[in-house]
Amino acid sequence: MEFKLEQYLDGIYRGDKRMIGKAITLVESKKPAHRELADELLRNIMPRTGKSVRIGITGIPGAGKSTFMESYGKILVQKGHRVAVLAIDPSSSLNKGSILGDKTRMEELAKMDKVFIRPSPTSGFLGGVANATFETMLICEAAGYDYILIETVGVGQSEVLVADITDAFVFLKITGGGDELQGIKRGIMEMVDLIFINKVDEQNRTLAKNTKIELIRALHFLSPKEAGWKVPVLLGSALQNEGLVEVYEKLSEFMELKKSSGRFDSVRKEQAQKRFEYWVHAFILQQISENNQAEALYNLHKKNASELTSNPSTEAQLFVSKLFKK
Amino acid sequence: MEFKLEQYLDGIYRGDKRMIGKAITLVESKKPAHRELADELLRNIMPRTGKSVRIGITGIPGAGKSTFMESYGKILVQKGHRVAVLAIDPSSSLNKGSILGDKTRMEELAKMDKVFIRPSPTSGFLGGVANATFETMLICEAAGYDYILIETVGVGQSEVLVADITDAFVFLKITGGGDELQGIKRGIMEMVDLIFINKVDEQNRTLAKNTKIELIRALHFLSPKEAGWKVPVLLGSALQNEGLVEVYEKLSEFMELKKSSGRFDSVRKEQAQKRFEYWVHAFILQQISENNQAEALYNLHKKNASELTSNPSTEAQLFVSKLFKK
Repeated sequence: MEFKLEQYLDGIYRGDKRMIGKAITLVESKKPAHRELADELLRNIMPRTGKSVRIGITGIPGAGKSTFMESYGKILVQKGHRVAVLAIDPSSSLNKGSILGDKTRMEELAKMDKVFIRPSPTSGFLGGVANATFETMLICEAAGYDYILIETVGVGQSEVLVADITDAFVFLKITGGGDELQGIKRGIMEMVDLIFINKVDEQNRTLAKNTKIELIRALHFLSPKEAGWKVPVLLGSALQNEGLVEVYEKLSEFMELKKSSGRFDSVRKEQAQKRFEYWVHAFILQQISENNQAEALYNLHKKNASELTSNPSTEAQLFVSKLFKK
Repeated sequence: MEFKLEQYLDGIYRGDKRMIGKAITLVESKKPAHRELADELLRNIMPRTGKSVRIGITGIPGAGKSTFMESYGKILVQKGHRVAVLAIDPSSSLNKGSILGDKTRMEELAKMDKVFIRPSPTSGFLGGVANATFETMLICEAAGYDYILIETVGVGQSEVLVADITDAFVFLKITGGGDELQGIKRGIMEMVDLIFINKVDEQNRTLAKNTKIELIRALHFLSPKEAGWKVPVLLGSALQNEGLVEVYEKLSEFMELKKSSGRFDSVRKEQAQKRFEYWVHAFILQQISENNQAEALYNLHKKNASELTSNPSTEAQLFVSKLFKK
């Protein structure tokens, strides 16, 4: 990975997929020397970023996320877009996709000239997924991709992190029979902008329609995330290419709404501020953990607080005043 | 407020309401000199705290929170408990209770020997509500109150903060007609342990029963907060003393469940850890804001990030490395 800044920039701007990949590997690196070059790279490409539509996609393993991204991605290409897919690395231990024999993920899409697919690792430094993913997205935008699809693993806080870097959030659901909504992860319904019930066929269409009714009812219980937007619940089959054009149209409509209300820009700014605050906090904790004395102090005060023998804010105050006295 | 530590401690342990009040004023104070004495006080009382049942109560203005606390509080006293009520100060600007002519709040309860009522201000240092409220609760526990009721204003993050210091969270709802659940604040349904539909009478009983059905359906869509606990939806009237004994029984049952599963203790420890982390973060930000140079630096990097001209994590990294170089 011994390239110069100019080589990375040139490769990205030319849309050279190999160099885009190398640049992503650079921003994913945790080595201090790489971080410096990565920061310089990001500073340089920044003016060329921000112009894409950023879409987060979630759903349990088996909901058909990669098939959905393949079919939806092909439609985007047909409509004249350039598409980057930040997928979950199937070799990653946390991901269950691989055990479903899903090895040839997005095979057709991957061959397309206007498409770039990057499998992301699912774990990293300080919940670094979101960071590397965000920076990967910037590189793809600088390379001219105007649609970025980001798959999330659905583990821990990953949806929140992905929702915080995207403009629209899509939830894939499959219909099973019985109590459909019981298993939906806490908080998902509140962050979603569009729901796609996938794998609908003649056998389960009635069931799927009932699931749709249940979902609409559940959505109705929530105050709207985006004023003037009723979260659509669409039925279809990504494998059979059914319902995907509707997804494209609805999401385009959603983007129009957000842009005309000014929410598109204001949300992106809020996201950036939030991310700044998050990383200030994370880097301060990193500084603490890299200093043996500070780390011991932190652990001591945290232990005092969690053993309920002392007041947490007193312990926090003691720790912080010692930290800044040094 | 010129008392010595021993005088505060003696007053608290004797259950002298005037001195309990003075001690609370001390822990609410922002002055550094008071903070030092307050911390000493808290360290001393800590072994006598933690034995109460801590209950958070929320609901929109007009849902009858103070009437509920009065009626429920009286039942608790009948059952042999000592009750502390941390209520919202009706004179506080954020509170809408006062405009409802609600000046004589909890009049009967306030006169009872075994009851202590403390109106809390709704605003404060660094979202300090939660902190002062938590410390106020510790003082009440040290004074022998074994039930603490904490009212929340329902503004901003206040429910989350109160849920993070309590063992059970009660949501008061009134029935209106029409679309009952549309106006429920985002996130409330996910943190609630018991719902009480208040102000039910002969005129609106059918309506209230429908609201109950809707609420049960909405709860059903959420994964359970506490394994083995089905959030009860109870009907009644706090003013007419109807349904309050059932509230008492259900909440006692809930406490039993949490204690036998070990969740009672583990959740309190998690809460303390979380509070420690929260306050470390808050105090670090305070340190930054108290240093002109650091504050200017923070604002500069935050501005860079939010204007989307630079990568937020790069800006955060730059800020933190400068902060710790000084």
